[in-house]
Amino acid sequence: MKTPRLTVLGAGPGDPELLTLKGARVLGEADVILYDALANRELLQHARPDAVLVSVGKRRGMRSFSQDEINALIVEHAHRSGHVVRLKGGDPFVFGRGREEMLYAEAHGLRTDYVPGISSAVAAAGSVGIPVTHRGASEGFRVITATTATGELASSVAEAARSRATTVILMGLGELPNIVQLYCAQGQAETPAAIIQNGTLPTARLVTGTVAELPARALEAGIGAPAIIIIGEVTRLATPEVLTQALPTVFADASYAEVA
Amino acid sequence: MKTPRLTVLGAGPGDPELLTLKGARVLGEADVILYDALANRELLQHARPDAVLVSVGKRRGMRSFSQDEINALIVEHAHRSGHVVRLKGGDPFVFGRGREEMLYAEAHGLRTDYVPGISSAVAAAGSVGIPVTHRGASEGFRVITATTATGELASSVAEAARSRATTVILMGLGELPNIVQLYCAQGQAETPAAIIQNGTLPTARLVTGTVAELPARALEAGIGAPAIIIIGEVTRLATPEVLTQALPTVFADASYAEVA
Repeated sequence: MKTPRLTVLGAGPGDPELLTLKGARVLGEADVILYDALANRELLQHARPDAVLVSVGKRRGMRSFSQDEINALIVEHAHRSGHVVRLKGGDPFVFGRGREEMLYAEAHGLRTDYVPGISSAVAAAGSVGIPVTHRGASEGFRVITATTATGELASSVAEAARSRATTVILMGLGELPNIVQLYCAQGQAETPAAIIQNGTLPTARLVTGTVAELPARALEAGIGAPAIIIIGEVTRLATPEVLTQALPTVFADASYAEVA
Repeated sequence: MKTPRLTVLGAGPGDPELLTLKGARVLGEADVILYDALANRELLQHARPDAVLVSVGKRRGMRSFSQDEINALIVEHAHRSGHVVRLKGGDPFVFGRGREEMLYAEAHGLRTDYVPGISSAVAAAGSVGIPVTHRGASEGFRVITATTATGELASSVAEAARSRATTVILMGLGELPNIVQLYCAQGQAETPAAIIQNGTLPTARLVTGTVAELPARALEAGIGAPAIIIIGEVTRLATPEVLTQALPTVFADASYAEVA
């Protein structure tokens, strides 16, 4: 009988080569892998041929599994098969509910581990030349999400709008007009900003402009989720050569609930 | 003649297995590796046997190289040998001056690339069970540093003290008494907080308590740099089993200027 255990594992921001060495090893040790929509499926090549692979991702607004169902699946699979790896986009502790799943698993007798992943909050911005910190431009950065569990615009957006530090907003595209309104109300209409879709992937796309210009530019370019919004002086450092051509795409797909 | 180029590469938070697959590949392609004190030296095993390895780290207050000297070294080595990899602790764009070095290199004819690394801001906290975000406890997080380039306590610390969101402070141990004073002045003496030294390494150590209790507990435990300070409700989720025994160590070594 194998010991029932859970490892929450960060898949990184998109590029499958941005998985950690430890992440690759742990995937190869898994008896069961429960993976999200935002975890690049190419990562499953690290799995053993006999591993059980289960997609619990959310796509286009369809929730295939609720959080309660995912928790139950983890415990069930671990008791049945041994080592469950929960593969999550980005880092499991950056809006990933990773600690929640660990606490539930621990309460049900599982041993748990956390293996961090590269968060798109830093890497997607960095992949287009935008550093979240830069001497003379930003003394720090904050990472927030636009919508809370109850679907309201998070109060952290209002707090961020009162500050001049770099702000990275995950899962914010559907709330872009409201975010822009909050920033403009704080006199930040002219603050430079950017949106990055599919950061670190060959399909990456970048839109830059002032805060006030962002919604029109995003629509014009047909930018869609998953994307991060980044606001602050550091966005002036974006590399100009990244593709920004318009492509047909889904706008503001709120279903990407676990991008990190 | 090889093309002169620079890749700024994130070494991750400490555990050498938290290097990315891409990071390992790039280290193996490097003609020259300029590495920091905070990049785990075990990572150099990925280097080619004929690669030139240069330590440009800062240790115990001794600056072996100034930033200007490092910039010059990058350009010199690239023109002489080809591909220079600049290996930095954490992520190169999180207080790492990575973009500065890229801009300097580009201005001197080098092609440049960025390969992200896992930042200790998320992973060191996570490694002791503290998630930077957690439903019901934190809608986001901010990452700041305590000292600016001029050595003053950063204004971002004062801003953070007025907020209830999770705050992660890098390179802050030497300013701990001043940080605590700012938080107490904003009515946050009782907010739970933690200090993590050597997060993700076997030598990891954790101290928890209220903001007001932190300095005494850190001294008692002999916590030293490199360490992160994390303030907010999420620190209640720290796993209790992490070693906190007192060990003789250097307190508040300000020389670790590039931890990220």
